[in-house]
Amino acid sequence: MHAITLTEFGSPDVMQWTEVPDPRPAHGEVIVDVAATAVNRADLMQRQGFYPPPPGASDILGLECSGIIAELGDGVHGWKVGDRVCALLAGGGYAEQVAVPSTQLLPIPGALDLHAAAALPEVASTVWSNLVMYGGMRSGQTVLLHGGGSGIGTHAIQVAKALGATVAVTAGSQSKLDFCGSLGADILINYKEQDFVEALPGGADLILDNMGAKYLERNVNALAMDGTLITIGMQGGVKGELDFGALLAKRGTVHAAGLRGRPVTGRSSKADIVADMTTRLWPMIEEGRVGPVVHAEIPITDAAEGHRLLDADAIGKVVLRVT
Amino acid sequence: MHAITLTEFGSPDVMQWTEVPDPRPAHGEVIVDVAATAVNRADLMQRQGFYPPPPGASDILGLECSGIIAELGDGVHGWKVGDRVCALLAGGGYAEQVAVPSTQLLPIPGALDLHAAAALPEVASTVWSNLVMYGGMRSGQTVLLHGGGSGIGTHAIQVAKALGATVAVTAGSQSKLDFCGSLGADILINYKEQDFVEALPGGADLILDNMGAKYLERNVNALAMDGTLITIGMQGGVKGELDFGALLAKRGTVHAAGLRGRPVTGRSSKADIVADMTTRLWPMIEEGRVGPVVHAEIPITDAAEGHRLLDADAIGKVVLRVT
Repeated sequence: MHAITLTEFGSPDVMQWTEVPDPRPAHGEVIVDVAATAVNRADLMQRQGFYPPPPGASDILGLECSGIIAELGDGVHGWKVGDRVCALLAGGGYAEQVAVPSTQLLPIPGALDLHAAAALPEVASTVWSNLVMYGGMRSGQTVLLHGGGSGIGTHAIQVAKALGATVAVTAGSQSKLDFCGSLGADILINYKEQDFVEALPGGADLILDNMGAKYLERNVNALAMDGTLITIGMQGGVKGELDFGALLAKRGTVHAAGLRGRPVTGRSSKADIVADMTTRLWPMIEEGRVGPVVHAEIPITDAAEGHRLLDADAIGKVVLRVT
Repeated sequence: MHAITLTEFGSPDVMQWTEVPDPRPAHGEVIVDVAATAVNRADLMQRQGFYPPPPGASDILGLECSGIIAELGDGVHGWKVGDRVCALLAGGGYAEQVAVPSTQLLPIPGALDLHAAAALPEVASTVWSNLVMYGGMRSGQTVLLHGGGSGIGTHAIQVAKALGATVAVTAGSQSKLDFCGSLGADILINYKEQDFVEALPGGADLILDNMGAKYLERNVNALAMDGTLITIGMQGGVKGELDFGALLAKRGTVHAAGLRGRPVTGRSSKADIVADMTTRLWPMIEEGRVGPVVHAEIPITDAAEGHRLLDADAIGKVVLRVT
């Protein structure tokens, strides 16, 4: 098959569409003929050599895909060849085929475009595992989403609104904020012009943060009583000062979690997240209340352009078409 | 009635047993004839002027008591004059009588000494709300308790063992560690001689911490995957450096919470904690699996001596007898 490989670590141009060995399904895995994959910030870091794949994972880029099941490995139940699926991957999505544990497959909801569905697994798993399964997001809460225009942000807005929360977002441009508003966000904060702590005088029950150290102090100050800060990225630095006095006064919580390093099965696993999403999130997608937000769909042979688009502040996801 | 009042803020000797007005029960409150109260670290801080009572609370010291119900206010159900009780207070325990919301009363388990029961409400509410209600402590987990010889530590050891957890404690002397071992603690760590991170190579699912900033980095390093650090005191400083990289790699959580500032009713309230303890913890006390740990029982007219004993590293609680 063909896949994107790297001539070396570096700029987007190190990515080449080349011939590589076909994947084989291990026990419990299926082979998916990939229709499309999507670009994640982790791909850009891996391309530059800063984010090696976890042990056992493919060294081909790509943390999600959509496509058609081509082959079942031993011990796979509930799926058949020909099923339209999307999948959460530990790697290997930038390719014509990928092997994936069947516990990381999700069905393509009826009316959804097969290629656009490639934009769902990573953002959905990240948002659902953190805000819903960990944070217990529910009706009546106020949720603050940093980077509201990102793939994760645009998905989180929809899920939070579908669950009945009040949604505040930060972004750095009016066009992003307008788009967030069109998805239902209630409070639009341009972080270049306004302090988000001041913009939320009642505080947030949940904060989804991608900035880490840089926002720590203000995020704690922006928590409501019993509020929870969930940090999933460290774009603003790794080490920050935590004020226990401020946190204790709020009975607050700081949680940080990633997705890629989770185990395939067991406690806090990808299988757990996918199973819970299938039951509780997928009906919202089938009803059209939550859907993929695709900034651009381009051929995978132009993967370099896809990476540049994400770096240039795409609103939503960049999808790479394989078929 | 008589109560301890302060001639000024300062040393233990500012406390005097003097005549003050009797308390009156507000709606939903009862008057308790106090048999005994117990000393908390917060009392020492309040005596020195560092910890003013929350709005509406008595300015008399004392966050817990045991005694006999003397009078019911309007709107009190389920209690009667003459009931033997212990109570979680927002203040006012160092007195012959105290007014307390009936939702903060707990029955005295059958065989328990009325005076010793004064040592239970604060430590039980703190341990139960944080480790069980927030942290979800359960069988099979490993729990690290800092200050294992303190009132909170000696209570937490018993509750954790009763729930089937493996218990590690830190303390600064062999006599404290020996006592923790006699209560069932499995792993005894003298923090003056051993690094607790190294002593727990598998990590802790839950850490109960009273040190704050000073232990933050090592506490995060001592967490197991998906582990939770709960900080309830800041004896080692208020502001510490949080390494999001280390926390994210563990999918870890840092939580901080107090007890005194919680609302009387509603979400995260004292009423919620007391109700849950009555249902789930009190049976363990009735069965003798969890009990008060009393270092010394002295007359309330010697309150100054009680404060000095706590400061001198008492093991367990110091009870002040009123009757």
